[in-house]
Amino acid sequence: MSSPSFRFTLTSTDGAARLGQFETPHGVVQTPAFMPVGTQGSVKAMRQDDLEVLGASIILGNTYHLYLRPGHELIARRGGLHSFIGWNRPILTDSGGFQVFSLAERRTITEQGAEFRSHLDGSRHMLTPERAVDIQASLGSDIAMAFDECLAYPSSREAAARSMAMSLRWARRCRERLDQLRAGDVPEVTVTNPGQAQFGIVQGGVFQDLRDESADATVAIGFDGYAIGGLSVGEPNELMYEVTAATARRLPADQPRYLMGTGTPEDLVESVARGIDMFDCVMPTRNARNGQLFTSQGRVNIRNARYAEDDRPLDPRCGCYTCRRHSRAYLRHLYMAGEMSAAALNTLHNLSFYLDTMQRIRDAIAFRNFDTFRQEFLRSASRLPLDS
Amino acid sequence: MSSPSFRFTLTSTDGAARLGQFETPHGVVQTPAFMPVGTQGSVKAMRQDDLEVLGASIILGNTYHLYLRPGHELIARRGGLHSFIGWNRPILTDSGGFQVFSLAERRTITEQGAEFRSHLDGSRHMLTPERAVDIQASLGSDIAMAFDECLAYPSSREAAARSMAMSLRWARRCRERLDQLRAGDVPEVTVTNPGQAQFGIVQGGVFQDLRDESADATVAIGFDGYAIGGLSVGEPNELMYEVTAATARRLPADQPRYLMGTGTPEDLVESVARGIDMFDCVMPTRNARNGQLFTSQGRVNIRNARYAEDDRPLDPRCGCYTCRRHSRAYLRHLYMAGEMSAAALNTLHNLSFYLDTMQRIRDAIAFRNFDTFRQEFLRSASRLPLDS
Repeated sequence: MSSPSFRFTLTSTDGAARLGQFETPHGVVQTPAFMPVGTQGSVKAMRQDDLEVLGASIILGNTYHLYLRPGHELIARRGGLHSFIGWNRPILTDSGGFQVFSLAERRTITEQGAEFRSHLDGSRHMLTPERAVDIQASLGSDIAMAFDECLAYPSSREAAARSMAMSLRWARRCRERLDQLRAGDVPEVTVTNPGQAQFGIVQGGVFQDLRDESADATVAIGFDGYAIGGLSVGEPNELMYEVTAATARRLPADQPRYLMGTGTPEDLVESVARGIDMFDCVMPTRNARNGQLFTSQGRVNIRNARYAEDDRPLDPRCGCYTCRRHSRAYLRHLYMAGEMSAAALNTLHNLSFYLDTMQRIRDAIAFRNFDTFRQEFLRSASRLPLDS
Repeated sequence: MSSPSFRFTLTSTDGAARLGQFETPHGVVQTPAFMPVGTQGSVKAMRQDDLEVLGASIILGNTYHLYLRPGHELIARRGGLHSFIGWNRPILTDSGGFQVFSLAERRTITEQGAEFRSHLDGSRHMLTPERAVDIQASLGSDIAMAFDECLAYPSSREAAARSMAMSLRWARRCRERLDQLRAGDVPEVTVTNPGQAQFGIVQGGVFQDLRDESADATVAIGFDGYAIGGLSVGEPNELMYEVTAATARRLPADQPRYLMGTGTPEDLVESVARGIDMFDCVMPTRNARNGQLFTSQGRVNIRNARYAEDDRPLDPRCGCYTCRRHSRAYLRHLYMAGEMSAAALNTLHNLSFYLDTMQRIRDAIAFRNFDTFRQEFLRSASRLPLDS
């Protein structure tokens, strides 16, 4: 059963690129959309009003982190994640699977689910498809993700097939569990957002026939949207683009498609060109904290000595607070001096660049000149980094 | 010679408490005023627009830090500190003396000045009264402080007398040097703010006759304002208040009086009651980063488990962004999770509390009910901490 509160509308297309929007209990999101990552209920170094000013229409929360600290039950008692963190726009939560596979210690994966120890205090936990659904229902995100197994790259075809098949069985259990929650059959779970939508995740590694099988079977289960998981894990970019294009084609045209964990600004443009509607990635926020900045003229490593006396704004074509107010020289000084405001100003800029790129993508599709935009964008982005 | 750009006006008094304002090349400051500390050209965890929204009319920069990194000459080439950090309101710089005595390594103090090694890289430096004036002239602050020796507490009367006498000789050299700079006699020094004012500093430890001697002799040199240095260094609060009161009385009524490095909100109120016009202190910003928050209902240690499920704002009487948007439960979560935004939100609140307290002090003096305000403020501030 689909969520009655979630509705995707495809507005127009330009080649495989799609312009659309989806409605959630906390508002509308224009697509293609980029979701800043707010792992622990905070997009690192940002305030919620900063995100609003930048035009972020949806953010992502990490179920694994929030489950461990402060706990989904505490958050449910606060009225859910939106209320707890003071963010009234849409939120998507992942299922926790990826972090169990990448962060947790001493994992044991069985058909039942994943047993692991917390990276925070070593405590033992079990995450099953049902539990991942329950936790996200308590968090009350607008979009919950199915619990899947994350395959390592590279993996054999056999391992990919086995993992994909289990993820499919887990996806069915996730769907059934949410239907039970909606029917009120699990009273011990606090549901804080009854209009929550649920997305399935297509797996299958880099084997297109497995991806096709996973896509068909996941769609058959019936979700509100579909994600492509297990990419951006180390495979060559061209391979990621190929799998993305072929898998996106196989998904329903009238539902949103989400490429998980991607990527560089170029990846976003290239994936939109292949039919993707939604993205999340820590790259703009994490790189900002390391002084790696995205600009319309190429990458900038603000630590570079060449910026010590550079009075120009970071990106003369950017309208963000950082670029309007400060020079590269000041940003470099803050970074070198270890000031916290370096992280805040850099993150503000990088997220502005990402969100502005999405706006330009949407405008280009609306005016049906996406391919021209794409060529120009890749040309400017592929310039030698300013400080190479 | 006084700065022609600096003018202090005493508007009204209520007992020893004074309401006034001073004009600088970068605008007017209402007094009593609190100056947030922007050690390295950034008030830690704040953006400049945050400070503007909070109503900060003047901030402090540390000469020692800025001299070592990124260097006053680099800052002068950027047009001065205001231009470099993107802050167009008044700035006061200290002389670097206090940090040489508290942070630097292997100090040697002679009549000539202070030789020391940088706490950053061990490099050798010499700070003299003339050099401290030159550096501040290059930084281009609106108010520069004379270079003085900082006495340890406790100190013998003899040590206090000897140190006070040297600080006086240094003060004369500072005054002469600034006159030379203004006359254009030192062309190798870049002066970025020709309207810079200069304040003298009264020393003398806790010995009131030495304080009196220092005050009279410092006033005789002729500065644009006078600071009381060497307090808030570990002496009992009552002793600080006594020395402050007696020293303030000895200073000219028509010039501003600045109590350096103080203090708690109660200290501000008590010192205004003794005739002080200006303050600076790292307490609101540093404590915020440690989760120690000031509220109208007493101190809050946001780490305390009792706030884990507390949905109330930090301070229901505060109108800052943090209190308008977030709960104690969320602030505690951010702190416990090590999120940078904890520092930003907490600092925003603590500075808001300090600056709001100054506004309430000014209002109370204007309405001539400062003593009533003071009694009420001390009563609410002295309540047992909420989480004791």
